[in-house]
Order: sequence, then structure tokens, then C-alpha cells
Amino acid sequence: MTDVEQRRGRPGYDRAGILAVAVSAFIEHGYDATSIAMLAERLGLSKSAIYHHFASKEALLAAALDQALGGLEAVVIESEALGGPAEDRLAHVLRGAVHVLVDRLSEVTLLLRVRGNTDVERDAVRRRRAFDRAMQALVREAQDAGAVRADVDARIVERLLFGMVNSIVEWYRPGGPEDASRLADDLLTIALDGIRAR
Amino acid sequence: MTDVEQRRGRPGYDRAGILAVAVSAFIEHGYDATSIAMLAERLGLSKSAIYHHFASKEALLAAALDQALGGLEAVVIESEALGGPAEDRLAHVLRGAVHVLVDRLSEVTLLLRVRGNTDVERDAVRRRRAFDRAMQALVREAQDAGAVRADVDARIVERLLFGMVNSIVEWYRPGGPEDASRLADDLLTIALDGIRAR
Repeated sequence: MTDVEQRRGRPGYDRAGILAVAVSAFIEHGYDATSIAMLAERLGLSKSAIYHHFASKEALLAAALDQALGGLEAVVIESEALGGPAEDRLAHVLRGAVHVLVDRLSEVTLLLRVRGNTDVERDAVRRRRAFDRAMQALVREAQDAGAVRADVDARIVERLLFGMVNSIVEWYRPGGPEDASRLADDLLTIALDGIRAR
Repeated sequence: MTDVEQRRGRPGYDRAGILAVAVSAFIEHGYDATSIAMLAERLGLSKSAIYHHFASKEALLAAALDQALGGLEAVVIESEALGGPAEDRLAHVLRGAVHVLVDRLSEVTLLLRVRGNTDVERDAVRRRRAFDRAMQALVREAQDAGAVRADVDARIVERLLFGMVNSIVEWYRPGGPEDASRLADDLLTIALDGIRAR
């Protein structure tokens, strides 16, 4: 057990803290291999202290996935509230998605591993698909407005752009040389203008 | 058992066929949860018939990872043999990587899940890192030549570009509307010129 875990393990651990430890365990050992008993051991809490905050292991997963999905959905809603050209709204979502990913790295990592084997996972997959469809529609709108090149299929553009965003979870580590704003700038530079010098 | 598995399961199954079934099982159940006994069952072969071709489960993993890595490394060597401007060599590798990924989808999927827990996995991680470093050097060379914009860090450019390539394993399914060459064209369009219309 690390110092952080020992410090966190004291009784009085709050809902957010329990969830953070659960998310780490899900990523490290896999969701199926993680039990409430293991989490209780890690947290230095009784199982009933965990159940006081979360009705089940699945409720922990649902809460974690909701943090990731809720963050992304909030960015989409923000972009709609901003209004303006579709291209600007797309750029806003791409930038916001990088921030959500960096701020909620573990939760997004978990989301990207979900395959839809349970009701909670199927619900998360459904929300991911709705996000993707909304972004495909936005790419199409920007193409129709002449702001985004129309010679690439909107679905492929959307998949490749958000694939690039999602790939950040593979290597990004908090406290590294690249902060989220700089990373979002770099990603927008590549996505919108490409790497070719002019 | 599916029809394909039954057909494949006849005695006389060759090395490549055994490997393909093993890779599917590793992806479906995880490497740790897959045993030689399970593979023998799936193939309708004895365990010793498998051992005739592969000394161990780890040898199966090593062969699968080598197909993915060997494909990518061959593309790099090809690009060096082509010579010419760094930008063209980078485009060649990006295009070739899309083809390797589409042709060896399962093996690359397995490669992207490897975390370096065994000697075989550590060797694969080492080869992936060597590939990434070679690509970072190529981006830098293209920047020095003035062909690639220099206002984005070469390491970040490399990670985002190949992150976009790797993300294809998440959604690409053989026989879909997008063939590998078209997909490679689309990816190069986005990577080099961006999606903004001019």
C-alpha cells in the first residue's frame, strides 16, 4: 500500500474519494476482478461504509462513466449555447474534449474500455454513440457551410479526429511538460490546418 | 462453436491457422485467461499438436506481436529505401501503417493492449518505442527542412498522428464501406492538410 492509499484509507473517506480509489482499481485489475471487499481493504473502510455511498459495484462504475460522459456532454451543450459557425463549435468541442480527458483521465480511460456487457455499460455505449452522431452531424454542417473540406466522409473525419483525442489517454500523464491548454492548441492545429508548413 | 471454428477445427490445421485462433481468443478472453487447453478445444486439436508448432502460449503471443511490429518496421525500412524528402517518407509510413493495421487488425489490437508484464511484452514495448522514436526523428527532420510546421513539438505531433492511426482498431471492420487505401488517403488528408477548407 502506498502512502497516498494509507492516508486516503482513514475512516471518513468521502464519496468522491471512494470513487477515485474504485476507478484506479478497475483500471489496474479490471472491473470484473475488482470486488467491494478489495476496495474496502484498500480504503481501510468496512464494506458497509462503501455501501453507504454506493449501492453496488455497478453503481461505482456508473458514477465513473457518468463523470466522463457528463463532461463530454457538457462541452457539447456549451458549444450549442455559444452558437456561431459549425466549424467554431466543432473546434470548441475538440478543445473541451481534450480538457475533459486530461481532467478525468482515469474515468475516460475506463469509458474507452467499456464494451457493453451490462446495462450500465450498454447505457454508456449508447451515450458515446449519441456523442459521436452529434459530432458527425456537426462535421457535416461545417462541410455544408463550406468551412470544412467535403472530400472526406464526415463519419471518417469524426472518427479520426476523436480517435486522435482519445489516444491521448495512452500516454498523457498529469504534471508532464504539456498542459491541457497547450495540448488542445496542438491538436486543433493538426486537426484544422494539418502539419504541412505553408 | 461457429461454423468457421468447426471448419477450422479439423486436424491438419496449419501454423498460421493456429495462430489466428489464438489471437482471437487472446482478444476475446484476455491473454492470461486463455490456456493451451482452451485453444486445443477450439481448434479440435490435441495440445501436443499445438506444441508441435508453438513451444508455449508465450510463443503464440510473441508470433502475433511480431506480425504487427514486423509489418510496421517493414514500412519504416521501405520508407528509408525510398529516400526523398522527410515529409514524403513520413506520409509513406502513415499510409503504410494504416494498411498494416487493416491487414493485421487483430495482431495490432493485441499489440496496443500490451503493457510490458513479461519478457515477450517488454520486447514488444521496446520495439514500439523504437518505432515511435524513429517517427519523432522523422517529424523533426521534416520540420528542419521547413516542410512540416515547427510550432508544434515533434513528439506531440508524432503521438497525435499515430494515435489517430491506432484509433482505427476501435471501429474498423473488414468489408466495411471504407477500404484501406481510401482510409489511408483520408488520414493523410487530415494529418497533412487538416480539415479546414481553403
